[in-house]
Amino acid sequence: MRGIGGKDLGLLFSELPSETAAVFTRNALKGAPLVVTREAVEGGGVRAVVANSGIANAATGWRGIEDARVMQELVAEALGIKVAEVAVASTGVIGAHLPMDRISAGIKSAAGELGGDGFAEAILTTDTREKEAVARVEIGGKTVTVGGTAKGSGMIHPNMGTMLAFLTTDAVVEKKCLEETLRLATDRTFNRVTVDGDTSPSDMALLMANGAAGNPPLSLDSPDYPIFAGAVEGVARELAKEISRDGEGATRLVEVVVEGAASEGEAAALAKSIVGSNLVKAAVFGEDANWGRVITAMGYSGVAFDPEGVDLCFGPVKVFSHGEPVPHDEAEANATLAGKEVRITALLHEGDASATAWGCDLSYEYVRINGSYRT
Amino acid sequence: MRGIGGKDLGLLFSELPSETAAVFTRNALKGAPLVVTREAVEGGGVRAVVANSGIANAATGWRGIEDARVMQELVAEALGIKVAEVAVASTGVIGAHLPMDRISAGIKSAAGELGGDGFAEAILTTDTREKEAVARVEIGGKTVTVGGTAKGSGMIHPNMGTMLAFLTTDAVVEKKCLEETLRLATDRTFNRVTVDGDTSPSDMALLMANGAAGNPPLSLDSPDYPIFAGAVEGVARELAKEISRDGEGATRLVEVVVEGAASEGEAAALAKSIVGSNLVKAAVFGEDANWGRVITAMGYSGVAFDPEGVDLCFGPVKVFSHGEPVPHDEAEANATLAGKEVRITALLHEGDASATAWGCDLSYEYVRINGSYRT
Repeated sequence: MRGIGGKDLGLLFSELPSETAAVFTRNALKGAPLVVTREAVEGGGVRAVVANSGIANAATGWRGIEDARVMQELVAEALGIKVAEVAVASTGVIGAHLPMDRISAGIKSAAGELGGDGFAEAILTTDTREKEAVARVEIGGKTVTVGGTAKGSGMIHPNMGTMLAFLTTDAVVEKKCLEETLRLATDRTFNRVTVDGDTSPSDMALLMANGAAGNPPLSLDSPDYPIFAGAVEGVARELAKEISRDGEGATRLVEVVVEGAASEGEAAALAKSIVGSNLVKAAVFGEDANWGRVITAMGYSGVAFDPEGVDLCFGPVKVFSHGEPVPHDEAEANATLAGKEVRITALLHEGDASATAWGCDLSYEYVRINGSYRT
Repeated sequence: MRGIGGKDLGLLFSELPSETAAVFTRNALKGAPLVVTREAVEGGGVRAVVANSGIANAATGWRGIEDARVMQELVAEALGIKVAEVAVASTGVIGAHLPMDRISAGIKSAAGELGGDGFAEAILTTDTREKEAVARVEIGGKTVTVGGTAKGSGMIHPNMGTMLAFLTTDAVVEKKCLEETLRLATDRTFNRVTVDGDTSPSDMALLMANGAAGNPPLSLDSPDYPIFAGAVEGVARELAKEISRDGEGATRLVEVVVEGAASEGEAAALAKSIVGSNLVKAAVFGEDANWGRVITAMGYSGVAFDPEGVDLCFGPVKVFSHGEPVPHDEAEANATLAGKEVRITALLHEGDASATAWGCDLSYEYVRINGSYRT
């Protein structure tokens, strides 16, 4: 597949027809692009994605829907494909209308330069860098590639955040299998990311498979399916971590691992509660291994568990066990927060399920960015 | 009732036996003081409250429970009452043990000076000011007084936060009626406050009634009950607003009113989702009337509603209606965020229930305070 993009608009295009699976925000408010993209994905055969940054085209009423449809039409015309084969994604300010003259010019110019670079850059807003990942695996004697591009920096929360992710693969995959693969990968990666607890109305993840690899078609019971699913999840995980690392104002990536839980769902809920706590995030920013805030965030996660049965570690330093503080060198614990990547681990003794969630610290810069975003 | 306090420890004492109702945190981790206070309240007849700030005595295991019991014993001894008549509350750092020598000295000195001032000051941590409120109403020809003191600044979230509230009244009230009054007042006031989304393990609200007013006993079906309940709720509301106004790093109080909802529960969920959004809070700090973040926060509240049927106002300025932006003067909308009190209103057209929630903006100072709290 080929992509192109200027600073504010990008195009992704597969010359071959492709199967596409999609996941959308759970926010009750859904941006106009999601309405038209859902129709396209349900119709089948999405081959192109147009994405713009700067304005999310959400909370924009009938005119917003019209604008999203015009974007579809302009792309279809420029690439010589059907309107129903075009997915649309927008990210940026909510509640403003798109500057359709600039969008139109951007689509024409991008379509003329397909095969170039820049799609990953085009979809950025407050992001500070491009987010791309790739995996290659062998399936039925054929090399299959899974690639991915994402954006996301603010309004990021489990259940997606202002997050756009476009995954592509040349694998031959049955539609149902593709959908299940994306659902599970999203649940384990994008839905375990939080920057600020705000779930946006613009989120979407697409997984497009155009079959160019010529492998035996993958279904959920293919022996090679786990290899493919693992590759997709791996790419999605890399993108999810990149999104966390590049959270608005972030100075470090926070990885929270919960082990020994009764179920993966409970482990994930606990991990997300920790990584989403403003107080934990501010403590990480201040390099203060304030583990009381970690056990507290677990306590309000909604998961029933016994706080007395939890071991907490900052990096390798155990700080809490059997319901009590573990005597430790505070300077050593604080030092685990000094790097670019921080790991907090909670070990329960309730079962053998585990989950990881990713986030970032809460800095002055987050406040600055979001106190002056529109103006 | 009489109170006293030094900077870190305070005592509240009723010479008459009193009925007491209590509400505790819903965090699965409960501080040691809550364990002993719950026992005391269930036993009936709590007459004294000892509260310290600085250390929360939570996540402190068996030694924490022991320390809380010692506080009970010291107070009982100093005041000549029973151990079971003493409630204990602690607020501050989680995961550290109390300095029992200082606590002991503090209790002795406070008991010797009862009738003085300073209880409201003694329970403060990162709070910048004391929080007190009082209401006087006529019940059955008698004047009844309801007084209240609270602390709370960080780790504040619906379902209480690091919030301690002690309400006292001289009314004669049946126990069941007292419990229902506190439950409802808490639900409508303290549980509608958020500073940072973190629910602490230390929260408690007590309502003590010692009957000194000599009014005809109040039950839930007394004709005068609504007057009493209104006085309690009014005092609790004042304290809740004071807590929001004094949120860590706050520069302004944010009041969110949701009207026209299908039920009070849904109205409250929507209001709390708005007032709890980091992005809304940062926008208020930056005096940016970024209403897209408001409708977005409603969208992820978990309440099913039609975004097209919502009118949004910043102060008196309508910014969103019928699913679309309402043309307005942005400077005028931003100006509604310039004062010390900000009001955001969402009017639905789903029913006639309403609810109000309170919070504050998110400032650099919040990050500074919480990046360096322990050290």
